[in-house]
Amino acid sequence: MSVFLSERFSSLTPYVPGEQPQDKKYIKLNTNESPFPPAPNAIDAVSRAVERLALYPDPEQKALTEKTAALCGVGFENVLMTNGSDEALDFAFTAFCDTNSPALFADITYGFYKVYAEWKHVPFTEIPLNDDFTLSVDDYIGKKGAVFIANPNAPTGLLLPVSEIERLLRADASRLVVVDEAYIDFGGETVIPLIKEYCNLLVIRTFSKSRSMAGARLGFAVGCKALIDDLKQIKYSSNPFNVNALTAAAGIASLENDSYNAENCRTICENREYTIRELRKTGFFVTDSKTNFVFAKKPNVSGKYIYETLKQNGILVRRFDTPRIDDYVRITVGTKEQMKTLISEIKKITEAQNA
Amino acid sequence: MSVFLSERFSSLTPYVPGEQPQDKKYIKLNTNESPFPPAPNAIDAVSRAVERLALYPDPEQKALTEKTAALCGVGFENVLMTNGSDEALDFAFTAFCDTNSPALFADITYGFYKVYAEWKHVPFTEIPLNDDFTLSVDDYIGKKGAVFIANPNAPTGLLLPVSEIERLLRADASRLVVVDEAYIDFGGETVIPLIKEYCNLLVIRTFSKSRSMAGARLGFAVGCKALIDDLKQIKYSSNPFNVNALTAAAGIASLENDSYNAENCRTICENREYTIRELRKTGFFVTDSKTNFVFAKKPNVSGKYIYETLKQNGILVRRFDTPRIDDYVRITVGTKEQMKTLISEIKKITEAQNA
Repeated sequence: MSVFLSERFSSLTPYVPGEQPQDKKYIKLNTNESPFPPAPNAIDAVSRAVERLALYPDPEQKALTEKTAALCGVGFENVLMTNGSDEALDFAFTAFCDTNSPALFADITYGFYKVYAEWKHVPFTEIPLNDDFTLSVDDYIGKKGAVFIANPNAPTGLLLPVSEIERLLRADASRLVVVDEAYIDFGGETVIPLIKEYCNLLVIRTFSKSRSMAGARLGFAVGCKALIDDLKQIKYSSNPFNVNALTAAAGIASLENDSYNAENCRTICENREYTIRELRKTGFFVTDSKTNFVFAKKPNVSGKYIYETLKQNGILVRRFDTPRIDDYVRITVGTKEQMKTLISEIKKITEAQNA
Repeated sequence: MSVFLSERFSSLTPYVPGEQPQDKKYIKLNTNESPFPPAPNAIDAVSRAVERLALYPDPEQKALTEKTAALCGVGFENVLMTNGSDEALDFAFTAFCDTNSPALFADITYGFYKVYAEWKHVPFTEIPLNDDFTLSVDDYIGKKGAVFIANPNAPTGLLLPVSEIERLLRADASRLVVVDEAYIDFGGETVIPLIKEYCNLLVIRTFSKSRSMAGARLGFAVGCKALIDDLKQIKYSSNPFNVNALTAAAGIASLENDSYNAENCRTICENREYTIRELRKTGFFVTDSKTNFVFAKKPNVSGKYIYETLKQNGILVRRFDTPRIDDYVRITVGTKEQMKTLISEIKKITEAQNA
């Protein structure tokens, strides 16, 4: 720390990204990446974009925004493209939260909500999920503050039905609800159509997971025009060229080849159901994930032991050293072959334990 | 504006990027982009990166940072890669400025300093440049606050010698000096070597101009380890994957082909000197720019008239509707052919005026 760092940040705890060890080649099931490459037309599209790289990107990202809006069935004015969905969250915390407008989110959810709230000095309350990790919207109704909900939730994988989110929206039209749908393409139902009725709804999406573009950093926010205009105000004051030209080209290519991504999502859902079934056969408790990961624990075996044993055997999964979930592992759904290897290693662990 | 926008932002004035009109094909000399494409090896490098796009980028950007540090003759720990140099500025304003540590910058300089200060609610003082647009470091010595200097300055093009910046650094070791060297590769001398002696110096650079990569959004900050660690603290709390994998690949390719960029810079400097000479012949006052743009005015002709007449004739330049410089135009240096066309159109304007 230098003597120049503002005192506001002297006790900051930054977000810790999933580990990317370089010591050997792992089957990497720890950061919810897709096992499939992006749409094949992206290579050509991006190569052409390199040739024009001397020019600034379109600050409005008109072509990309139009295609995204069309996909979502909303207007151009309802969409803002962002530098990953994290930037959409960043803009939302900045624009809509302050000392008078705190943030509310679950105790077990995407870790970045807390990081944003802390470093932006936004007061926040973590509202405990139920014992089975389901979220009761009644726990939020009547409490003051903008609500941030990951749906499906991470790392639990559980999906909240649209009707419940609508109940929350309707309970208090003067309270903002941000729904982070990073994993919605793996079997969930989006709340995007509700933006036409509820101006207190902001939906956040990403190209990282279902579109195999985590490396590109592309996300977007969807909401009524007034909300999107507010986010644009923040964008043009902080990062007007927030989506670079290469990422934009890859994003457009992805939207033009939507059936490719949809097919990958179907395959991942099949592989997820296979993984859940097999894990349950070996005595694991596994949540009903509607994402591209499974969240599982084995009674009487510590999450730390499972994580470490898998890592020793070349499979990287994620574990959170967090109360209530420290015995769980979060396993990204990869190819069928990868999941078969995983199950085989898991069986060795459980057999060794039973022996 | 929605009812949800925090009151802090109700009167924000966002940065206005240079216009990108779509009505016809212009010779585009308004946003200081390079007329040359990026290093040719970038196409292959980026295509290969698309294939791995499903994976998150390296949050540390190790390979890119190592190459950048080697180029600068500093250590890995002295460099932080950022999403454009704007993000480096954003991090610096965030980390090092607050109500107790105001910002100081020139009245005529890169417009984003004021935008950042305003939207981050950092108190700031704009210190007038001299009548000839030179900057006197004595105007800063004795005043409290972090200093932000664009060197060479935009849009004046004028370069401050290293010795003057060193005098400012030495005058008060407890005051931070941020030197924004976006245009340094066009004939200026960098202050980067001074970071070894002065821990109150932070240097900010970009790949946008001299490396023909404005579309990619890549910049970096150079400073003593403690300063860079502070910026990393901000990065990991807000945007851990700030440099995407495509941009990183293009950046590495650019650094591996440094002679290509150096040659382009030489050509641009030659074209700049040609443009300055020719403009002066037609009676223009032109500053001694050490950048990839020229800053010029014609006595008794309004900047607005020059800007509009050039635009009508297919050449886009930039004009700032700002006191002291509203009769100037800022003209990006393009290819020799583009500059010849510009001079020819300028001559028509001056001849029409003399007739």
